[in-house]
Amino acid sequence: MAQWVMLMCFLLLNLEMLESTTIMLGNYPSVSYPKSCKELLHLYGCLPDGLYFLSTSSGTSYLTFCDMTTDGGGWTLVASIHENNMYGKCTVGDRWSSQQGNNENVPEGDGNWSNKVTFGTVEAASSDDFKNPGYYEIIAEDMSVWHVPNGANVDNWKPSSIFRYHTQKNFLTQYGGNLYNLYKAYPVRYNAGVCHTNTGPSIPIVYDFGNDESLSTLYGPNSKREYEPGYITFRAFNNEKAALALCSGLKPKGCNIEHFCIGGGGFFAEGSGRQCGDFAGFDWNGYGTHSQWSASKEMTESVVMLFYR
Amino acid sequence: MAQWVMLMCFLLLNLEMLESTTIMLGNYPSVSYPKSCKELLHLYGCLPDGLYFLSTSSGTSYLTFCDMTTDGGGWTLVASIHENNMYGKCTVGDRWSSQQGNNENVPEGDGNWSNKVTFGTVEAASSDDFKNPGYYEIIAEDMSVWHVPNGANVDNWKPSSIFRYHTQKNFLTQYGGNLYNLYKAYPVRYNAGVCHTNTGPSIPIVYDFGNDESLSTLYGPNSKREYEPGYITFRAFNNEKAALALCSGLKPKGCNIEHFCIGGGGFFAEGSGRQCGDFAGFDWNGYGTHSQWSASKEMTESVVMLFYR
Amino acid sequence: MAQWVMLMCFLLLNLEMLESTTIMLGNYPSVSYPKSCKELLHLYGCLPDGLYFLSTSSGTSYLTFCDMTTDGGGWTLVASIHENNMYGKCTVGDRWSSQQGNNENVPEGDGNWSNKVTFGTVEAASSDDFKNPGYYEIIAEDMSVWHVPNGANVDNWKPSSIFRYHTQKNFLTQYGGNLYNLYKAYPVRYNAGVCHTNTGPSIPIVYDFGNDESLSTLYGPNSKREYEPGYITFRAFNNEKAALALCSGLKPKGCNIEHFCIGGGGFFAEGSGRQCGDFAGFDWNGYGTHSQWSASKEMTESVVMLFYR
Repeated sequence: MAQWVMLMCFLLLNLEMLESTTIMLGNYPSVSYPKSCKELLHLYGCLPDGLYFLSTSSGTSYLTFCDMTTDGGGWTLVASIHENNMYGKCTVGDRWSSQQGNNENVPEGDGNWSNKVTFGTVEAASSDDFKNPGYYEIIAEDMSVWHVPNGANVDNWKPSSIFRYHTQKNFLTQYGGNLYNLYKAYPVRYNAGVCHTNTGPSIPIVYDFGNDESLSTLYGPNSKREYEPGYITFRAFNNEKAALALCSGLKPKGCNIEHFCIGGGGFFAEGSGRQCGDFAGFDWNGYGTHSQWSASKEMTESVVMLFYR
Repeated sequence: MAQWVMLMCFLLLNLEMLESTTIMLGNYPSVSYPKSCKELLHLYGCLPDGLYFLSTSSGTSYLTFCDMTTDGGGWTLVASIHENNMYGKCTVGDRWSSQQGNNENVPEGDGNWSNKVTFGTVEAASSDDFKNPGYYEIIAEDMSVWHVPNGANVDNWKPSSIFRYHTQKNFLTQYGGNLYNLYKAYPVRYNAGVCHTNTGPSIPIVYDFGNDESLSTLYGPNSKREYEPGYITFRAFNNEKAALALCSGLKPKGCNIEHFCIGGGGFFAEGSGRQCGDFAGFDWNGYGTHSQWSASKEMTESVVMLFYR
Repeated sequence: MAQWVMLMCFLLLNLEMLESTTIMLGNYPSVSYPKSCKELLHLYGCLPDGLYFLSTSSGTSYLTFCDMTTDGGGWTLVASIHENNMYGKCTVGDRWSSQQGNNENVPEGDGNWSNKVTFGTVEAASSDDFKNPGYYEIIAEDMSVWHVPNGANVDNWKPSSIFRYHTQKNFLTQYGGNLYNLYKAYPVRYNAGVCHTNTGPSIPIVYDFGNDESLSTLYGPNSKREYEPGYITFRAFNNEKAALALCSGLKPKGCNIEHFCIGGGGFFAEGSGRQCGDFAGFDWNGYGTHSQWSASKEMTESVVMLFYR
């Protein structure tokens, strides 16, 4: 039966789809595109990975990437976290932490984890921060995460990715259906909580590329004793009460989480702000050294892409 | 008669409009949407407040908010001034003053009051600076201003606003029909004039929410002796020749205008640049203290939305 | 024969075109606009200069300027380099060099010469940096460059420009058809080469406005002995191994190229970073003085527009 569905898909693709990976439905302006890649996939049965137009409830259309194959497909790219300058400590381009310098008076930093500000384009999502209206508008159940080398072309995102996984138990439903709502409940704000006590949800993951061991090749060797692999964790605090937004692939056990969690508020007390930035303290023992607390070069130079389904 | 028109409106809404607040007219690409909310309202007779698509003369369409009810409606949101970091003195995000630091060599700062640069989205207009092509393209007669709490959702802008008013004597007609042209004639540039002598137009306002007394709950107590309520004033200079772009709700009498006027050029001599920023010296005696010269917390944390009609 | 073609054009324009300079072809969403101004011109035979919609391969449409008359027309505006603050040394707005401060650890700076990040709008292309998807997507043969006074309106770009020229031997074909590909092969990166040895291509130009002598009125008098006029040069290094992206109107002979080449990487060793910025060392002997190494005021305050054909 699965076999037969695959065949039908193949025929459909041959007849209608292969000439373009951009599908357009309905007639603009009579409202237009589906709201998510999942909805789009349901309409067509099966579709290739690629760029598609989606619409917001207000009728704005935007182009994004749909992963139409992993675990049944229907994953909408809603954001990418790109470290443009590991040496810049909360400078221009640190939209997922702060562009205001390390500053105790700006505890939420830029605040983009829980507002409706959007930026970037899908074509440049591996070279710059990206956030589209789907981030706050789509009501989803699960998430998928890709770590893709900086500057990779769209067609190469999946084949070149160094780590990929997804959740599968509809966890988002209990947190408002998306990260916008989740982070409203778990603010990414300095001093809004402390390590351990105020950690947000940790959700088990299924690996699509990589495994428990991958993490030790990506995060620094010292970090290994501070986390448990196999999870995605939202909003956690380090020893100095700095808020980190996302711990990819793991659940923190210790409190030196700035070496393997990303995004954050606007203040990092340790090291005079050396940890302030989208990839926080990934370079604590040197840029890309993969020594002590430092992440590997390939991790430091990969963008983190967030998908909803 | 007014009664009867209201009824007709109600029927129209029931039949056609209530399923969506986004109206689309004509067939894209055959030029498309109206140029302003006023034009749109004329086409339909009456419409609810909400998000609508408009078109520029070059055929670009953009989404913005229309106030379709205040004083007959037809008000187009063209800009919002958002103070993203009161502690950042002409840093990233200070688009309505300067993102170049306090600098005498950059007397106009970013220059956005009188150029065609656009930024932001209407959905995020209470969380970030916003400026759409209507700002420089629509030819209007009057203005309306809303002070809306930071981060409020579109549907909540009007109900949650802390201060709202409009002008009613077609003053824009004599200044080129919009702020772009007005500020070409009254440049927001450091040292382009002095206090009193070179103040731009002060236009009487009609309050839609609030009154003369509201101002004293919003601006600092010391400021009260420096202004006359009941006006909107464009381009004024303080004691140190810093240019401020907009004084909302008042006409300056004294010269310490940086405590109740917003936007500006790129240089503020007093206090080593502590007044450089979108909300200038609103925090002179502490952030949100409403003591001496400091504005209230609710004013400091509200975005200023500008409408044309 | 040329005469007759001109006449036919005139008639066409009278009948169809003059009511709008925005042409729309086909029916959105059935894919839509031509991919370049050249393609558009081929469809119509002749068209006036102005703003037109183009489409990317993924179906996104964007508005840009087409020069439809110079040397047969068909030139697509793909980028503009705007110096927003000559006193800001790799600060906000220096997108064609670096917004990260002068920093040896960020050798490519913002990297926008060879990535797919886009920014700005055509309406504001003389007041802000501009880069559209055509920059990396159009496959072209030649380039044209305009130096246009800051803030000029679209209709006034050509008449007010201070220098204009184009290439004519299809040089882009051997460099991948556009600057995105050219700069992949010739990275704009500090220390990726040295003066003379690693200079990228220098292509002869034909002047459309100005001549060999114009350069001496635009660049500083000292610069004259350091270049040969009549070329456009891509990627060159100065004495201190700083990478410059584009030398407009000339081929460098000496190594003090930061006074007449623009754009660049993220590090300029000389003068503690005083040369870091979109217009590098144009102000070395004072802003706009046109003395010693300094460029003229009119050059310093003009945007550099890049066209493909």
